Amino acid sequence: MIDRLIERIQETGAPIVVGLDPMLRFIPEKILGRAFDKYGETPAGAAEAVWQFNRAIVDEIAGLVPAVKPQIAMYEQFGTAGVEAFAKTVEYCRQQGLLVIGDVKRGDIGSTSAAYAAAHLGRVQIGSRLCSAFNEDFATVNPYLGTDGIEPFLQVCREEDKGIFVLVKTSNPSSGEFQDRLVDGRPLYEIVGEKVAEWGASCMGETYSRVGAVVGATYPEMGAVLRAIMPKAYILVPGYGAQGGKGKDLAPFFNEDGLGAIVNSSRGIIAAWQQADYASYGEDGFAKASRAAVIAMREDIRQGLESR
Amino acid sequence: MIDRLIERIQETGAPIVVGLDPMLRFIPEKILGRAFDKYGETPAGAAEAVWQFNRAIVDEIAGLVPAVKPQIAMYEQFGTAGVEAFAKTVEYCRQQGLLVIGDVKRGDIGSTSAAYAAAHLGRVQIGSRLCSAFNEDFATVNPYLGTDGIEPFLQVCREEDKGIFVLVKTSNPSSGEFQDRLVDGRPLYEIVGEKVAEWGASCMGETYSRVGAVVGATYPEMGAVLRAIMPKAYILVPGYGAQGGKGKDLAPFFNEDGLGAIVNSSRGIIAAWQQADYASYGEDGFAKASRAAVIAMREDIRQGLESR
Repeated sequence: MIDRLIERIQETGAPIVVGLDPMLRFIPEKILGRAFDKYGETPAGAAEAVWQFNRAIVDEIAGLVPAVKPQIAMYEQFGTAGVEAFAKTVEYCRQQGLLVIGDVKRGDIGSTSAAYAAAHLGRVQIGSRLCSAFNEDFATVNPYLGTDGIEPFLQVCREEDKGIFVLVKTSNPSSGEFQDRLVDGRPLYEIVGEKVAEWGASCMGETYSRVGAVVGATYPEMGAVLRAIMPKAYILVPGYGAQGGKGKDLAPFFNEDGLGAIVNSSRGIIAAWQQADYASYGEDGFAKASRAAVIAMREDIRQGLESR
Repeated sequence: MIDRLIERIQETGAPIVVGLDPMLRFIPEKILGRAFDKYGETPAGAAEAVWQFNRAIVDEIAGLVPAVKPQIAMYEQFGTAGVEAFAKTVEYCRQQGLLVIGDVKRGDIGSTSAAYAAAHLGRVQIGSRLCSAFNEDFATVNPYLGTDGIEPFLQVCREEDKGIFVLVKTSNPSSGEFQDRLVDGRPLYEIVGEKVAEWGASCMGETYSRVGAVVGATYPEMGAVLRAIMPKAYILVPGYGAQGGKGKDLAPFFNEDGLGAIVNSSRGIIAAWQQADYASYGEDGFAKASRAAVIAMREDIRQGLESR
């Protein structure tokens, strides 16, 4: 799947993943109104609005980007109905040719991580049948529990040709509280990065590993160090746009081959219609505003990489 | 809610939480057969079997223990149907007077953690209404992203009188890979433990904080150190039984007041009927075997605490 991701990045010229993290305040009144008319101001109503919103955006961006990244928390908050909207979104995106990175940040002890890996990437035995649950192409994983929490994901990555992105250095302001603490003079995120490289060696695709890493755009110097520590790991870079990262900050995350990183933007794309730059699209043009924002982001990244 | 937990621990004499982590191989053939007859060998069939299994066990143990801890991974692997079984289990347990610790190990950057906190402990605004989703009493939380990932949970704990247990030192064999790394000569889990105490100070119940910690029974010496670092934090102790922890290892996790810890057992209770000690209950007596295993565990812990 990592090979397919790289192929699609090259075809689209866009090392971009669109974060499908739909807060209700991003969704136009018309869509909300129709959903609430049908299901009331209920979790089912919210889930319907989220699904209609996602579908319209996906229809506009499907040919432009290789991948989307739905953040499951935004769906889980609407309970079972929300989780069903997550599942429908994953399935629809895959049908439209998009790769799906489930931003689930799961991670637990071995037997439990095995269940998470089955839930999101693999299959589960039910009686005589093997069934899949959410069936994303990639998932994000939290490393705090160590190798035996990661190993079940590696196994599924090998068996089903899926991939993971392990949290190494996250984009948020207090990520340094534990991640930057010095261990033998080196920050913890470097130690985690070394483990990512080690785990990844057993899960290679053609040129890159099925085990990637999450490193925030907000920390480009650390990105450069981690790039060197994990040369075969694809880096998923959140924090572009709303969180402050810019195209010119992104160069350190890429390898010399122009590959090795994929940059996420969530509200910068899906809520573009609420921003001054795209106001002319109006509420009805929300999905076309997202399309325009993707094109602008592709150009910003291209310039950022050319100027290095 | 932490005060209610302590009250129920004192009433039952059982500082015990039963882990509702139902793998299909723990479930008697009869229950599986009925569920598969109705829904086929499908995620819906598996979810139905899990729900019927849980309900029978909960009916036997409800008066004996203060709390249960469903592990959401075991439900998520059956997709939306599984998540619905999780929601039904949470609701049913609360109706039976049990407190529910959602073992979800969530944790993300601020705005996303806010959605997880709303999903599992709080409420979410939908149009003019505030709705709850899964509505557990407590949730487990991963600290790797630092304070801004925890803060939204603290806010919900204060507003809704809920609680969290933060992963500090987990019970699995490779937990030390990152958690034990020395930072200025002290293991990372101590640094995390200090943060738990700090976060907890802003969320106090009557005598203990709404912010607790997860520390594995498999590491009693570290439990003693962490007990001293976080005197007001309730410690949720996994790893008893199947993972190797024994009653006599548990004393370090408790305070002098005999409080301060609650011990989890999952398969040791819910799959007791498959163990030699409880074989006489047979397959039909699986829930009564769970009841007997709870009583034996209560006695083992009592003796372990008396001998200190």
